[in-house]
Amino acid sequence: MFEAAELDRKVSKKVYHEEVLPLREALLCAQQELRTRRSFRAIVLIAGVDKGGKSETMNLLNEWMDPRHLENHAFGEPTDEERERPYFWRFWRTLPPTGRIGIYCGSSWYSRPILDHVYGKISDHDLESELVRIRNFEAELVADGSVILKFWLHLNKAAQRERIRTLERDPETRWRVTAKDKKHLKRYDHFRATAERALRATGSGDAPWHLVEAKDPRYRSLTCGQTILAALERRLANDQPAPAPSPPPAMAATPAVRDDPDLPTILSTVDLSKHLAKNRYRRRLESVQGRLNILHRQAYRDGVSTAIVMEGWDAAGKGGIIRRITPAIDARHYRVIPFGAPTEEERRHHYLWRFWRQLPRAGHLTLFDRSWYGRVLVERVEGFAGEAEWSRAYGEINDFEEQLAAHGTVIVKLWVHIDKDEQLARFQQREQTPYKQYKITAEDYRNRERWDDYAAAVNDMVERTSTDYAPWHLIEGNDKRHARVQALRIVCDSLAARLPK
Amino acid sequence: MFEAAELDRKVSKKVYHEEVLPLREALLCAQQELRTRRSFRAIVLIAGVDKGGKSETMNLLNEWMDPRHLENHAFGEPTDEERERPYFWRFWRTLPPTGRIGIYCGSSWYSRPILDHVYGKISDHDLESELVRIRNFEAELVADGSVILKFWLHLNKAAQRERIRTLERDPETRWRVTAKDKKHLKRYDHFRATAERALRATGSGDAPWHLVEAKDPRYRSLTCGQTILAALERRLANDQPAPAPSPPPAMAATPAVRDDPDLPTILSTVDLSKHLAKNRYRRRLESVQGRLNILHRQAYRDGVSTAIVMEGWDAAGKGGIIRRITPAIDARHYRVIPFGAPTEEERRHHYLWRFWRQLPRAGHLTLFDRSWYGRVLVERVEGFAGEAEWSRAYGEINDFEEQLAAHGTVIVKLWVHIDKDEQLARFQQREQTPYKQYKITAEDYRNRERWDDYAAAVNDMVERTSTDYAPWHLIEGNDKRHARVQALRIVCDSLAARLPK
Repeated sequence: MFEAAELDRKVSKKVYHEEVLPLREALLCAQQELRTRRSFRAIVLIAGVDKGGKSETMNLLNEWMDPRHLENHAFGEPTDEERERPYFWRFWRTLPPTGRIGIYCGSSWYSRPILDHVYGKISDHDLESELVRIRNFEAELVADGSVILKFWLHLNKAAQRERIRTLERDPETRWRVTAKDKKHLKRYDHFRATAERALRATGSGDAPWHLVEAKDPRYRSLTCGQTILAALERRLANDQPAPAPSPPPAMAATPAVRDDPDLPTILSTVDLSKHLAKNRYRRRLESVQGRLNILHRQAYRDGVSTAIVMEGWDAAGKGGIIRRITPAIDARHYRVIPFGAPTEEERRHHYLWRFWRQLPRAGHLTLFDRSWYGRVLVERVEGFAGEAEWSRAYGEINDFEEQLAAHGTVIVKLWVHIDKDEQLARFQQREQTPYKQYKITAEDYRNRERWDDYAAAVNDMVERTSTDYAPWHLIEGNDKRHARVQALRIVCDSLAARLPK
Repeated sequence: MFEAAELDRKVSKKVYHEEVLPLREALLCAQQELRTRRSFRAIVLIAGVDKGGKSETMNLLNEWMDPRHLENHAFGEPTDEERERPYFWRFWRTLPPTGRIGIYCGSSWYSRPILDHVYGKISDHDLESELVRIRNFEAELVADGSVILKFWLHLNKAAQRERIRTLERDPETRWRVTAKDKKHLKRYDHFRATAERALRATGSGDAPWHLVEAKDPRYRSLTCGQTILAALERRLANDQPAPAPSPPPAMAATPAVRDDPDLPTILSTVDLSKHLAKNRYRRRLESVQGRLNILHRQAYRDGVSTAIVMEGWDAAGKGGIIRRITPAIDARHYRVIPFGAPTEEERRHHYLWRFWRQLPRAGHLTLFDRSWYGRVLVERVEGFAGEAEWSRAYGEINDFEEQLAAHGTVIVKLWVHIDKDEQLARFQQREQTPYKQYKITAEDYRNRERWDDYAAAVNDMVERTSTDYAPWHLIEGNDKRHARVQALRIVCDSLAARLPK
């Protein structure tokens, strides 16, 4: 495939100067339009061979456009905060919000897999898995409305060698040639072969690669600039105004999420009659808390992170379970993070972004009080996410959790189940307890009316996102004491399964 | 002073159980009220001798209150991302937003100065400087509406030794005694003396220390809980509803910022007649950009960070200057960050918080396109900040920049000055250029009408925040070419002054 970028394409000085001025002006206009509309983000990847002009291209784009609304990223060795999270964490934390352009120069999510493969650190098979992950990552961003432009700046071996020699000859530029460049040059053929595989595997229709012959800087610069402009303009022309969060459809228009609400869902399998007497509860709670304490101390020492996802009906007792888990763990080692409606800043990002941000450090535990599953629960039922959005979310969530699991994180997902009568009783009880009144709002009653829709959504969620690496656990919640002990046991068992005996 | 916490105070089991239930309930109510009002944040520091029960107290507070709205922090060795910024960066990044409670257990901003002094790594004089910094930090947070509660859990030497022995005797708790604990115990007297100095120096009226006798866990727990409750309740009772951002006062009511607008301000000293011809400009710009390129490469290698603050009149040409600085620097090593009105999340924090977040890593450069000076410029003139707020901001800003400078960061502050006629000419010119029209809004004309108020504010700003470690530079901006070369020279000179020859 690289032959197509070895044709000695050139642009004369004259043509360059004629084209550059209108190009810059048009790029500025497009950037400004993007900024005003805030309906999508643009991600520009500049990859390719060493000395192919990657940083020159990035610098030029910064000259051509308004650098105040560009974000440039290049990655060196991961920091220790990055090493303690899955590989993609460092990329998620740098993604631009809508309205802005992020430029990833040189090192990006492609660097590690490609270099590891070139240097024989990973097998062909591992490379394929990494490329699948990359494809999923980019597909998610595209589905979220990102424009992704990927440039591969290519030089053949002779041209690269020549470039390095020229730089070395001049004392002014000699510093730009590093030992690493020479080491890479020796592996040129390997590099070319691996890159070709990577490009083929990740050149999807929505995030295609643009192979750019890098020998002539004028040709290279104009090609990149014009490609970016065309993509921005095409997208701006087709752009729908950012969909306003649609109000919950009126009751009458409720879509029939399930044809027959009387069909059994996964929730009907939950035995809600289970019960635990008070004296037994005390004993068992104490014992399971003791077990959790020991297990989490071990997890902390071993650097094993834990993510606990708490989902469940309103008033199901999530808070009560959380308050039984936390006393067993040193407060320095956990965080409880409640998630409500996203903030202004969060809405300008992919819906998973705010959860990526909160991933625990090595050895730490995060309790997500409501979570990324909001996408397929409340957002689905209330119509805040369109059908296309929530249906693809199952796969996105599975990929996200797979990355966590592959990093070694323990994932515990709990759905706390109660029945409708029990919920009503608890609402009424809360209304009578002064410091619990705030927990009951008109919204709770509104949600209650959509019980069947929620039940169908929970059913689909469990069906589609219960994986071997991150299974769902249904908690039998009608009896609070039983539910708490059950939940703690599941947390303990999940930790124990991950830790060496 | 510690004698007051060596009185063997105890609480019986019976009294404890009588008091704990109503305390918990009241704490929950107060926490809930805080959460609803979102008018302030609470910061609880739990410090003191090793084995004095610091983490037990934090854990207990997490049981008593709703852990979903608490944030627990304990700090180990700084991460490399933290080491690359001033010492307080790690604390700023963890401060809770309004409506929430942050608990800092054990290690906090006090730890490093106290331990360094105990182990003879810093002199008395250095300790004093660190304590002044702490006092300023806390005073700023209090002024911003934070409730700060500082507990010092005290054990005398014998009690501490006894506590360590007891823990060691039991195989279940032996792991809790570390080599560090024993090392610290040997320095008990030093530790006590340094702690006493620290507590005296930082026990201000607004953020007082609470010395708690830690021998009896029941006494300790009740005392901490009740003190927190009292502070929250007192604050909630006196709480004013969060001041809505006051609308800009009507023109007629404009406060006379200066009695006589014709009095010369510092801006009248700027020679706006300076001019640079086009051909000279090209040469000089190229030469100063070359110099900047070499200097910043050196700064990058040496790990020296740079913060450039761009302020100036609307249409003064800030963007043009930025676009002349950036091409001289590798885009991987700088970020340009434009600051407008704060977001929802940012408004729940101290106004400096969003700037702390953006401090550059070692060797990197951040261009702040508008900055923390908004507090004493637009917020002052438009009435978004009250007089008490903007007047204390000068000192707060000086402290902030002093920390940056002490960390070794180069600070370059530029005010780009033009006169009123030039501004009008530029507004009109912009309105005629398609891709610049967006830059001109009705607001620009409104701001223009308050020219004299802004001029007075700029004058005060320069007068009060031009320090030897972070001086203001006034750019003669009527001639854009002259202004750009002047600005770049100042950036170069500032870098050169900091770098070894």
